[in-house]
Amino acid sequence: MNVLVVNAGSSSLKYQLFDTANNVVVAKGLCERIGINGESTIGAISHTNLLNKKEYKAELPMANHTVATKYVVDALLHAEYGCVKSMAEIEAVGHRIVHGGAYFSESVLLNDDVLAKLELCRDLAPLHTPAHIQGIQGCLEVMPDTPQVLVFDTAFHQTMAPEAYMYGISYDLYEKYALRRYGFHGTSHRYVAGEMLKILGKTEGTKIVTCHLGNGSSISAIKDGKVMDTTMGFTPLAGVLMGTRCGDMDPAVVPFIMSKENMTPDEVNAYLNKKCGLLGVSGVSSDCRDVTAAIEAGNERAKLAMNMLGYQIKKYIGSYTAAMGGLDAIVFTAGIGENTASIRELACQDLEYLGVEFDKEANNSVARPVKTTCLSKDGSRVKVYIIPTNEELVIASDTEKLVKTLQK
Amino acid sequence: MNVLVVNAGSSSLKYQLFDTANNVVVAKGLCERIGINGESTIGAISHTNLLNKKEYKAELPMANHTVATKYVVDALLHAEYGCVKSMAEIEAVGHRIVHGGAYFSESVLLNDDVLAKLELCRDLAPLHTPAHIQGIQGCLEVMPDTPQVLVFDTAFHQTMAPEAYMYGISYDLYEKYALRRYGFHGTSHRYVAGEMLKILGKTEGTKIVTCHLGNGSSISAIKDGKVMDTTMGFTPLAGVLMGTRCGDMDPAVVPFIMSKENMTPDEVNAYLNKKCGLLGVSGVSSDCRDVTAAIEAGNERAKLAMNMLGYQIKKYIGSYTAAMGGLDAIVFTAGIGENTASIRELACQDLEYLGVEFDKEANNSVARPVKTTCLSKDGSRVKVYIIPTNEELVIASDTEKLVKTLQK
Repeated sequence: MNVLVVNAGSSSLKYQLFDTANNVVVAKGLCERIGINGESTIGAISHTNLLNKKEYKAELPMANHTVATKYVVDALLHAEYGCVKSMAEIEAVGHRIVHGGAYFSESVLLNDDVLAKLELCRDLAPLHTPAHIQGIQGCLEVMPDTPQVLVFDTAFHQTMAPEAYMYGISYDLYEKYALRRYGFHGTSHRYVAGEMLKILGKTEGTKIVTCHLGNGSSISAIKDGKVMDTTMGFTPLAGVLMGTRCGDMDPAVVPFIMSKENMTPDEVNAYLNKKCGLLGVSGVSSDCRDVTAAIEAGNERAKLAMNMLGYQIKKYIGSYTAAMGGLDAIVFTAGIGENTASIRELACQDLEYLGVEFDKEANNSVARPVKTTCLSKDGSRVKVYIIPTNEELVIASDTEKLVKTLQK
Repeated sequence: MNVLVVNAGSSSLKYQLFDTANNVVVAKGLCERIGINGESTIGAISHTNLLNKKEYKAELPMANHTVATKYVVDALLHAEYGCVKSMAEIEAVGHRIVHGGAYFSESVLLNDDVLAKLELCRDLAPLHTPAHIQGIQGCLEVMPDTPQVLVFDTAFHQTMAPEAYMYGISYDLYEKYALRRYGFHGTSHRYVAGEMLKILGKTEGTKIVTCHLGNGSSISAIKDGKVMDTTMGFTPLAGVLMGTRCGDMDPAVVPFIMSKENMTPDEVNAYLNKKCGLLGVSGVSSDCRDVTAAIEAGNERAKLAMNMLGYQIKKYIGSYTAAMGGLDAIVFTAGIGENTASIRELACQDLEYLGVEFDKEANNSVARPVKTTCLSKDGSRVKVYIIPTNEELVIASDTEKLVKTLQK
């Protein structure tokens, strides 16, 4: 099945055309600078046919996501750089949705009820949800007969128990605003946990910690294949130090900074999301590669930032091991998880008490492109793996599976 | 040595006269409703001579802490309910100080330099520091020749490494406001850790988690007798769920609540400190005993609040075990830690993977008054203990030790 995987951001639309029968990405691309609120803007599309390697780039008026979706379809159908002959060959669309609130615990086929529930998630992800809805509307207009599926970043985390997802705030505000931990990167945690379970050869009785470490990072406790806890919370700000996000800290720091720096709620939110994390602590960059280079050049603050991240990951591994009552495997994935050996080493240091025998040599000689790689020594009771994530594959296969139920 | 232990709050002054030679509290009492900013108020003093059990209560004009200190001295000198014959018999004063910033890593004798540094801590503990300074000034006026010692709640935590005490905020704000984790209840953690080290029979190589669980709660990782990490942070709001404090949560929840509920920084700070925690989640009470009673009556939200607390403590035990690379002992202390068996059981559940063999029977039959009690089974690799805390004893003995250096 040819599935168009769509990831709509506030002013962008990323896409991949996935051929699920052959498990390959046929084409991919990005529309940028899409108008918000219908303002007339000149956007940009960049498209690549991955079979014949032909590329297409253009600047075009792009008032909204519907217009952008039209360009995407045009590109996919084009005689030279396209990859399908007719619209009918695009058999389904799978949308990545950042926040499904407590409404969605799995991927769903789009219908009016689903769209109404997604509308209720606007407050929970005020930047992303409107973009997702525009992306969906764009597809509905351009290809009204093509079935659409929504795949949520939050869905995999909906198995958490109340003691894991509730905050210590007053119950009335929890009820009024659905204010609780949701967790994000669920599609990635689900994919790498699934791959790890295949390696372990079973699901029941397994205890895994998955570390999705990228520009945004989250760590999950996965027991019997189900999420028991996760580090991101009501928003993707919580958890470990990230590229520009502060991660966990004393909540009283927020009103303190606001009072001292005379910031509004929106300003402090922007500060904590964009000026902190690796960038804010190191003063160098939000990119782990730059921070690593700065450490090699003797930058002490860069070293501090990386030590903080490593220490925080290690503490979450310990925390989630306690939550699950034991540990069978640790999985690293995403940009930093797949590519930064020093962070993996810091995170796994001194975990011998848990039965982790970390293979430093294997860790320091991971081959590129990164494939699934074992980082624990033979006989280590706890297995440590790098498993490259593949969220698009999950979105495409969920979409295929749900669309096939329509065809029965 | 007779040491007057003073704990000055914003409108109160608690005191104990400690006889360090015999290790007994000779008298104790409390002044309440002390005027702030010198306003003329009618305060109250309640005083008990613990030797002859005579009590004294009175309502008196109490414009400031100096006046209150005067009443305390009068009570201590009184022929009937007093316990010393002359001022000279009060040989030293030991003050409990909530926040010493990064200036104080141990108890100190009061001098001008110390007082100047304490002044710099005003911003870090805006409610407590002015009260402490007033309490010190009161003693300076009433007994100018008596040496005074300051014992800080934060001091014991000053051994944390930067990766444990730094937040993921931008470095400029860390420098500008000394914005970092400090930790509190240090005197209590120090006392119970010291007692646990005596039981273990060594300090080097030991790894202990101390759980001070009361109306305010904090948990510390103590390696080789030194704090490696602790749950409270820049303020005492962070960490596990408390009586009325929310504990850890996604920092983005704070601006969200402010925007939706139209709160100022001060208002949200008051909300998070006073309306949340056990009280806010259960809707019953901030007191663990009431919440426990409500659970027995079938209250589901009360059960949720206690499950959250137990789960959070367990996660910190796991987290700190990872930080230290192992675990030798878990210590419970303070109101909830000493008296609430269900919380201790929840916190120690499923920790067999760490070598914790929890003795439920011993846990459910702790005798009152609570003494140091072992809760782990014979042969349990990790020891679990209740150790009743005694912060006043630490303050008195620190005071005695420092004052003796003056007499040499």
